[in-house]
Amino acid sequence: MKVILYMAITLNGIIAKEDDDTSWVTETEWRSYSGMIKKAGNMIIGRRTYEVMLENNEFNKSNLNKIKIMVLTHDASLQIHNPKFVSIAKSPKEAINILHKQGFEMIMVCGGGGLNASFMKNNLVDEIYLDIEPIVFGKGIRLFEDSNFESKLKLLEVKKFSLNEIQLHYEVIKS
Amino acid sequence: MKVILYMAITLNGIIAKEDDDTSWVTETEWRSYSGMIKKAGNMIIGRRTYEVMLENNEFNKSNLNKIKIMVLTHDASLQIHNPKFVSIAKSPKEAINILHKQGFEMIMVCGGGGLNASFMKNNLVDEIYLDIEPIVFGKGIRLFEDSNFESKLKLLEVKKFSLNEIQLHYEVIKS
Repeated sequence: MKVILYMAITLNGIIAKEDDDTSWVTETEWRSYSGMIKKAGNMIIGRRTYEVMLENNEFNKSNLNKIKIMVLTHDASLQIHNPKFVSIAKSPKEAINILHKQGFEMIMVCGGGGLNASFMKNNLVDEIYLDIEPIVFGKGIRLFEDSNFESKLKLLEVKKFSLNEIQLHYEVIKS
Repeated sequence: MKVILYMAITLNGIIAKEDDDTSWVTETEWRSYSGMIKKAGNMIIGRRTYEVMLENNEFNKSNLNKIKIMVLTHDASLQIHNPKFVSIAKSPKEAINILHKQGFEMIMVCGGGGLNASFMKNNLVDEIYLDIEPIVFGKGIRLFEDSNFESKLKLLEVKKFSLNEIQLHYEVIKS
């Protein structure tokens, strides 16, 4: 089983503007991103990411409405929109365990910054894919919310997926 | 004349740990970095970067002691170690103007995060070179200190300069 963190970021490591805006992510990137998630059949996201995706109709737009979505939250009262496909987990480990028991071999970690950091801090991520958009913002939501961890990486692949966009693929070296 | 921002960063956009530690930057990267600075013959840095480089003997170690160093600071009392080569400027524009008048055609902007952000915010950077080290930190000093700007980029080149390190080269699209 492999746990993969996959995000689109600005060149300076921002995943969304402060108001959650990700409209600067291109269609090309989004197709690559949703394609890999569909292939995996699952995604683990934080509560805010879930609500923003729901609000923007992103599950329907990208045919992500038939994959298993694990929302990480401590709020048991969270209303989920599609109980057949959406579940709640309380911790990164629990989310992974549930998906693993359901038979998934590739488990996708997909933001936001707090969730990403908690998976890294718990040494749970095996590989990182980052699609680098050709843009920088002076501020915004970071790939990893401030947290105490440090991980060495091994570069696996660099891929240009459009004229101005590259994908970096790394293995996380487990300490 | 071209203004170039050149930094080594972690995959998530950090230029130094909170205690200014950059020991995770490889020798290979440092040779590429100091090589380009020597070629340009100058570098603009913030006061803290200047003091950290001085403390770590980095100007001597890398033969950067005969290039023009512009330190950006409002503190006129700053003691500079080598008045023949080190000068003080009060603003990004002033630093560029002084170096341009001295005949430099390639002007290097080299951190820290506050200085980098102020050059970007003032729309003064023409190109960005980032050497991506294969590491992530949960926190640290960011490539750009929080600031209000947004710049579109054009990807010029992707270069693998060691097994695990890549250099990204972008043009800043001037608005």
